[in-house]
Order: sequence, then structure tokens, then C-alpha cells
Amino acid sequence: MKTIIAADIGGTGIRVAVYPFSGSTEPLAQKRIPTRGEGTAVERLVGLIRELWPAGHEVAGISAGFPGPVNPYEGIIYTAPNIADWKNLPLGQILSDTFHVPAMVGNDANMACLGEWKFGAAQGHRDVIYITISTGIGTGVISNNQLLLGAKGLATEMGHTVVNPEGPLCGCGHPGHIESYSSGTGITSFVKSQLAAGRESSLRGISRLSAKEIAEAAVTGDSLAKEAFEIAGTYLGIGISNFLHIFNPSIIVLGGGVSQTGSLILDPMRRSLKERVVSEEYIKDLVITPAQLQDNCGLLGCLAWAQINFKE
Amino acid sequence: MKTIIAADIGGTGIRVAVYPFSGSTEPLAQKRIPTRGEGTAVERLVGLIRELWPAGHEVAGISAGFPGPVNPYEGIIYTAPNIADWKNLPLGQILSDTFHVPAMVGNDANMACLGEWKFGAAQGHRDVIYITISTGIGTGVISNNQLLLGAKGLATEMGHTVVNPEGPLCGCGHPGHIESYSSGTGITSFVKSQLAAGRESSLRGISRLSAKEIAEAAVTGDSLAKEAFEIAGTYLGIGISNFLHIFNPSIIVLGGGVSQTGSLILDPMRRSLKERVVSEEYIKDLVITPAQLQDNCGLLGCLAWAQINFKE
Repeated sequence: MKTIIAADIGGTGIRVAVYPFSGSTEPLAQKRIPTRGEGTAVERLVGLIRELWPAGHEVAGISAGFPGPVNPYEGIIYTAPNIADWKNLPLGQILSDTFHVPAMVGNDANMACLGEWKFGAAQGHRDVIYITISTGIGTGVISNNQLLLGAKGLATEMGHTVVNPEGPLCGCGHPGHIESYSSGTGITSFVKSQLAAGRESSLRGISRLSAKEIAEAAVTGDSLAKEAFEIAGTYLGIGISNFLHIFNPSIIVLGGGVSQTGSLILDPMRRSLKERVVSEEYIKDLVITPAQLQDNCGLLGCLAWAQINFKE
Repeated sequence: MKTIIAADIGGTGIRVAVYPFSGSTEPLAQKRIPTRGEGTAVERLVGLIRELWPAGHEVAGISAGFPGPVNPYEGIIYTAPNIADWKNLPLGQILSDTFHVPAMVGNDANMACLGEWKFGAAQGHRDVIYITISTGIGTGVISNNQLLLGAKGLATEMGHTVVNPEGPLCGCGHPGHIESYSSGTGITSFVKSQLAAGRESSLRGISRLSAKEIAEAAVTGDSLAKEAFEIAGTYLGIGISNFLHIFNPSIIVLGGGVSQTGSLILDPMRRSLKERVVSEEYIKDLVITPAQLQDNCGLLGCLAWAQINFKE
């Protein structure tokens, strides 16, 4: 049986799984290790792939997903927000030189988008937008059954599009991005700034405030918490209306912890979306749905990408 | 010789040209007639195609471009801003039933984008954004050598993306679109509102004010006119930074009368773009260039689209 090795590389954990090339999404083997520990992150990744290398099965290639800017054509990681020393790292080359099989490296949101499209919520759709909302906002797009990558693989950084030029600062240092309003970080920053300005809230005094605590407070009626999600949802709707006018998809898949707060963020999002679209045609048959693959999204996305690009 | 019939349908004029299927962009015949006159617009179009139908040459198909929302998969025009009675008009079906050859209908900005990519400024680029700035703003995108259309063909309406949720009203009735800031209409509206508020300017008293007169006044130093272009360029740069983060193109082609005002709009656009991109990678090798095909852009785009979709 021909196999594919998928690797989901994060700032805290590295997961590797061995899949049959096709016919099943059940891994033959898989394992997770912490990203930090003995040896460099590259050595740890290589060691884990070696440990799981399938005896007696041919490997068609290695497909890796990574949470940061990647040139997928050359397998080069531009920078790593959470892994020191990964700058212009030719990871694809390192893996293919080490294991003598083709190797590809892609952005994790793109991989998740591919996973949901091939195996999850967006199966059968030709035009898909995937948005994951957690501490940051990651996006991926399938247009006419193709993953959108751009000239250098830097496309679909839609969390970093401006929805208000005078808006709050994003983690990237620029003002008014969707991420600065609608991500967990954006929601938390808004609440913190209001608390600092003296506003009353049940959230005052909580030491490690995150979108989770704010969502809980909103459910119990805290007006600051409710307003934070109202703003996040409204700007998310503005952003999504822009994406609809740009891509005219038939489905939007929402992943990530913040989108799981449900109506708290989705109700204002839908209101704002309906208000902003220039034609009913954009939303008439549009499906907006939660992601299905959960934790395995990244690995399954790498599998999907490998199936498209490697030879069985 | 196999031939293609291209039709560029506008609110004021209909142009039809007969091209060899490949090998040359010189038309074998072409003619322009007013859109309004004896008979309906459809009858006038059909009559003109019949008049130019090439004797002794096989016609591979008819490819038509139209300035409004179109479903290119079904050849249906949703609405026509400038032609009465064109609502959900199955123009593709009408043309193929009449002439017994395949017929396609596409949005004119998409056709212009295809034209510049195949025969004009963007030849050889895999990822292209075309933006035409005149009374409105039209856009088209080539991603990985494919025209981006979306589920219903309504993609790349990028003039109608929000850059400021509280911004001025767009012609479409929604606030804060790029078109409401950076189109000829947007520039003129800003100047008119400032004049109405009592601001001094050499433009006061001009009866039929347009971006052309405002550009002339800006060149002679009129401060209101200069500010109008400064604002238009700044928001255009914000919009283009969004498109770069979304598409990561290698080239942006600028067409339309307003973009021909040159540094007046392009200098503030470039400043704002540089300020807004989250990584130098997006602009390092990016080409920003004027459109090349001028008046023939629409017809040549229809030719390009036909070459891709019809059989030689």
C-alpha cells in the first residue's frame, strides 16, 4: 500500500500521522510530541517522522502544515511566530533530502481549508471560504476547486484586511484589521481597554482574561462582554461581506474556539452581513456552517494536499 | 479559417468584431453601433452580428462582454444598469439559439482582465489583478492562470468592498466602499460636498463637474482638487493592500480614465499601500502598471475567453 506522511507543526506540539494514500482517512499510525525539548524543532520533527516511517509500505511523500507564512512552491518557511530560528527555513528541501521522497510545506489555515473541503463540511462545493477564529484569524480559499495560493503563497491572509483604517491595532502592528476586532485577542483587548477606562463589569479582577471568560460573562448578561461580542460579530460580518463580493463562494466554514461561542458572535455577524451585501444573490443560497474535522483538520488537510500533488 | 465573434455591449454602444480563432488579434471585420435606436438592444446586437457574420469561415462561437452582473455559467444577465428591460436575460441562450453556435456572456471587467493577461500588460503573469477606475470601479482577477468567477459568477466586485464602515455612500447605496472614495463619481461627490459646505476652490461654478475637471484643477494647484485626489489615492491604497493580502498577485494592471491622472492618484496610493502591507514580500517584486489595450480591451478579452472555452 502506498502511504502519505502528514505533519502538523505548531508552536507547542508537532503531530505526525501515516495515512493510506487513498480510500481511508484512518491513520495507520500517529503521534504527538511537544515542539520544544531535546534537539531543535527540525530534529524533533525529523525524528518523529523516522519513528513513524511505515515499514513495508512505500511513502509517496511528506505533506506538512505550519502556522505562519510559507512559500509552498519552494517549501520555504518565511518566519515562524512561535519557533525561534525558523527564518527562511527550506523545510521542504530538508525533509525531501533526509527521506528521499517529495515533501511539501503549506500554511495551516490553507491545509485546514483543504481538509474541510475534501473530508469535512465543504465537500462537493467548488467555491469555499474557510475562516478559523481563535487568538488570531486564519483563512483559506478554494476557488473553482483550487486552493488559492498567490504568486509567493502569501494569499488569503484575510484576517489582515482593513475594515476600518482608524481601527484598533492588530497583533501585526497595523490598524483596523478584521483580526483586531473579531479574534479572541481583539475581543479581549477591547474588554481590557474598557475596564482600564473604568467601565463596570463582572470581568473586573479576572487575572488571565480571554475570549472564553468574556463569552461566559456575556451569557450571564454582562453588558461589556455582550458589547465586545457585538462589535466582534459586526466587523466579522463586514469582513465576510467583503469576501463574498470578492469570491462569491457557495459555503463559508467557520472553525476555531471563538466561532464556537455561537449566537454571541454569529447573530451580529449575520445582521451585519445582510446589511452590507450589495445583492441578495450573494447570500441567498450561501451555506454558513461550523467546521467538522476539529483537531484532525490540519493533518487531514495535509493528506488532501498530498493526494492532489503526489502520485499514487 | 475558424473564427470567433466578440461583442462588447455597453449602455451607449455595441461593438462586434470577427477574429481569427488564433494567431492574430487583428479583426477580420468590426463595427460599432449605438445601443439605442431602432429595435430592442437584443435585436440590434443580433442584427450587427448577422451583418458581420463571416462568409466562408466557420464560427467557433460568440463571446460577449457586458458592464453589469452576469452569470457566465448560464449566460444570464442579472440586471443591466444602462439598458432597460434587461433583467435575468438569457442572452447566451438567445445568441446560441439564433446563430447555432456556442455563446458565452461575461462581465466586462473580467473580460478586460483576460484581455490584458492574454494580449496586454499582464502577459506571462500567473496571478493578476485588473482594476479599472472611471465613473465606477471594476475589477477582475486571474489566480493561478484562471479567471476567478465564483459560484454564480459574481466574484471580484472589489469596488464594492468596505474600506470604512462609516464612509460616504456608494452609488450602490452602501457606505464606505472603495468606489465611494476612489472612483470618478466618488472624487466628484467629495468636491461637490465641500463646495456645498462653502469651501473655496477654482472649481466653484463649473456646471458639469467630473474627475477630469478636478484633475485639471489639481494640476494648477487648487487645494480642494488636490485633497480630493489625495483621499481617493489613500483609500485606493488601502483597498489594494487588502487585495494583496487576499490574492498575493505579481502584477496589478490599472485601467480607466481616473488612473490616467497619474501621480495625482498614484502617489498617495503607493504611500498608503506601503504603509498598510503587513510584509514587504507583498510589494517587493510587485508590478503596478497601466493597462495597454485601451479601447479594444473588452473585445480582446472576449477573444481570450473564447480561445480558452471554445474548440478550435
